[in-house]
Amino acid sequence: MSSTPPVTAADCATALDAVRREAPLVQCLTNIVVAGWTANVLLAVGAAPAMVDNVEEAGLFAGFAKGVLINTGTPYAETARAMVAAASAASAAGTAWVLDPVAAGGLPWRTALDHEVLAAGTPTILRGNASEIGAFTGGAGGRGVDSVDTAEAMAPAAVELAGRLGCVVAVSGAVDHLTDGARLARVANGHEWMTRVTGVGCALGALMAAFAGVVDDALVAATAATATLTVAAERAATTTRGPGSFAVALLDELHLLTPESLAAQVILR
Amino acid sequence: MSSTPPVTAADCATALDAVRREAPLVQCLTNIVVAGWTANVLLAVGAAPAMVDNVEEAGLFAGFAKGVLINTGTPYAETARAMVAAASAASAAGTAWVLDPVAAGGLPWRTALDHEVLAAGTPTILRGNASEIGAFTGGAGGRGVDSVDTAEAMAPAAVELAGRLGCVVAVSGAVDHLTDGARLARVANGHEWMTRVTGVGCALGALMAAFAGVVDDALVAATAATATLTVAAERAATTTRGPGSFAVALLDELHLLTPESLAAQVILR
Amino acid sequence: MSSTPPVTAADCATALDAVRREAPLVQCLTNIVVAGWTANVLLAVGAAPAMVDNVEEAGLFAGFAKGVLINTGTPYAETARAMVAAASAASAAGTAWVLDPVAAGGLPWRTALDHEVLAAGTPTILRGNASEIGAFTGGAGGRGVDSVDTAEAMAPAAVELAGRLGCVVAVSGAVDHLTDGARLARVANGHEWMTRVTGVGCALGALMAAFAGVVDDALVAATAATATLTVAAERAATTTRGPGSFAVALLDELHLLTPESLAAQVILR
Repeated sequence: MSSTPPVTAADCATALDAVRREAPLVQCLTNIVVAGWTANVLLAVGAAPAMVDNVEEAGLFAGFAKGVLINTGTPYAETARAMVAAASAASAAGTAWVLDPVAAGGLPWRTALDHEVLAAGTPTILRGNASEIGAFTGGAGGRGVDSVDTAEAMAPAAVELAGRLGCVVAVSGAVDHLTDGARLARVANGHEWMTRVTGVGCALGALMAAFAGVVDDALVAATAATATLTVAAERAATTTRGPGSFAVALLDELHLLTPESLAAQVILR
Repeated sequence: MSSTPPVTAADCATALDAVRREAPLVQCLTNIVVAGWTANVLLAVGAAPAMVDNVEEAGLFAGFAKGVLINTGTPYAETARAMVAAASAASAAGTAWVLDPVAAGGLPWRTALDHEVLAAGTPTILRGNASEIGAFTGGAGGRGVDSVDTAEAMAPAAVELAGRLGCVVAVSGAVDHLTDGARLARVANGHEWMTRVTGVGCALGALMAAFAGVVDDALVAATAATATLTVAAERAATTTRGPGSFAVALLDELHLLTPESLAAQVILR
Repeated sequence: MSSTPPVTAADCATALDAVRREAPLVQCLTNIVVAGWTANVLLAVGAAPAMVDNVEEAGLFAGFAKGVLINTGTPYAETARAMVAAASAASAAGTAWVLDPVAAGGLPWRTALDHEVLAAGTPTILRGNASEIGAFTGGAGGRGVDSVDTAEAMAPAAVELAGRLGCVVAVSGAVDHLTDGARLARVANGHEWMTRVTGVGCALGALMAAFAGVVDDALVAATAATATLTVAAERAATTTRGPGSFAVALLDELHLLTPESLAAQVILR
């Protein structure tokens, strides 16, 4: 694939600026563990979260949100139905939507739900760790939410999957790999404490929905969202002593990060 | 309406002192996004939260709680039934209760639920932003949870609504407006970061339930709760650099705020 | 009972070291209030949380988790069924599991659920405050989640209960009392702000599941988990000014605490 990075630092800066100016309304159907944290990440970056995840309202709301996140971290009978309805309605309305198939592969019921969501429409972005993405590429699933495969090793299969689904596939890891089937972007920022705070990956899915709501090129949107979170994380880690204070500082840094600082600090490959 | 403020700084101080002394047990039927945050706000101020929101227990518990919060931010089939049961039981028992109709107006199903809750009994306090309150005054609903109308513009309709329902109506905004139909109180404290942290408005509903559990005059209770939260927010903002550290400091300030400091800093109109 | 403490500081240090080395996968079926906080506590200490609490997956997952927490803080029709399934599957697989019967005694429906969970298998550890444990010893239940009886007064009944159930019974309080029916351990660390942050007790249940996943002696596991949390809390309190900053620092201290520091600071009786 391309040896020059397909997404530039300037693209990332422009995308962050667009999120700040447009404050996209992002509907989240996400898990009970990270719902509050996810809303705070979206608010910190300048987006407007709305956690509408019941079956009576999810489809309706997906028709007027700017972006939709479907995260299957703690699915229940009712919210699983709502996720399928939201995927269908978002696809019909042309609303950007993201599927984050938490722990896919390891658990048959939710993996079947993920496939049902994908059958309801084509997401704008499918994001997960290498193990979760592997559940859709013929690879084996992982150990709960941990990633046992590396993002780099998963890249060729991700490219093939993106081409087959017709969407962006984003694989998080020490170096994030993102592809639309024709292009492959890499973001080399981040900090190990991102794995010691619950829901950092889940929040990345929400940020991707926000960015995809205001940026037409989905690969740019996914890459800029990744860059924003990982650069903010690097900044947060410099002033903190553990995962508790790191999580708090991450929200501050997401709020304070300027497009210019993002462009200067992001490492794109 | 009255040109002298109907609630005084001394009233607010007395109310906060009563919450500290009596540690009212506050039942919260609230949304999955803010449940933990809401409990921490109640604990910080000195109240005792209990999140009993299943249909088997909600009505029973509402009979011995001191205050009940019903917040329709993420209603589901089961919790919606629990909310109606809690409203009915709280009304029958004379327990103070608060309805916070999140995103009312914009979504028909939950708006119908809000009306069903109101039909089960008369709340002590109905609180929301201008858009949400507008859903009960004939005005149009808003964009998700954002407030598109100002609290001041909504005040006359809120006064009429309070008279019609026979409860206090509290409209949050840059200046909070609160009325029991005969009196109109205004609280001019607060900070813009309150809108960049999820659940600050939801927590205000919970605080109102706590204060109404120990203060007989519901307008005083609602106003004192608003004063406590907004003054603590002003204090928290002076030492923090973004919404993450602000939220943490807000809990600290709620814990540290004395009735005397509250009386000195609150701006009542 | 024994006048020399049955669990030593060295036992606690060894147990914490084992958690760090083995990073046990801990399945949590817990309440919506504390799910995120609980995950962050587990991550901070070095364990791997997975909140699998739907009825389709809970039993399956309990078969390959290293520890399982069942906390009945906000049970619903679906998650209640999942809790029984997880208790049964964990018992069948020999997976260590903990029951935290939040507000048992005060509410008949959840108390019946707790008994149903106990009928599905024998937990490794039953933990609660004195009021909650009293619901299983013939004592009266308490006021919501508050503890109205002291842990010390409950100790003789806890010893009897542990012998009858064949598990460890842990009673939290100013001094925590833990027993397997033959031995009685006491941990005298902690800080009053632990009661001003929601879910500290719930997180202790999760830590016990993590420790019991890697330590064979369940009394040592429960005691070491208690020591780790309460010593970290003492450290966190020294640098903070209220419950907001205390909760953040508690996560940092759980991450930073070394086995050596734990052994030096724990007060065992």
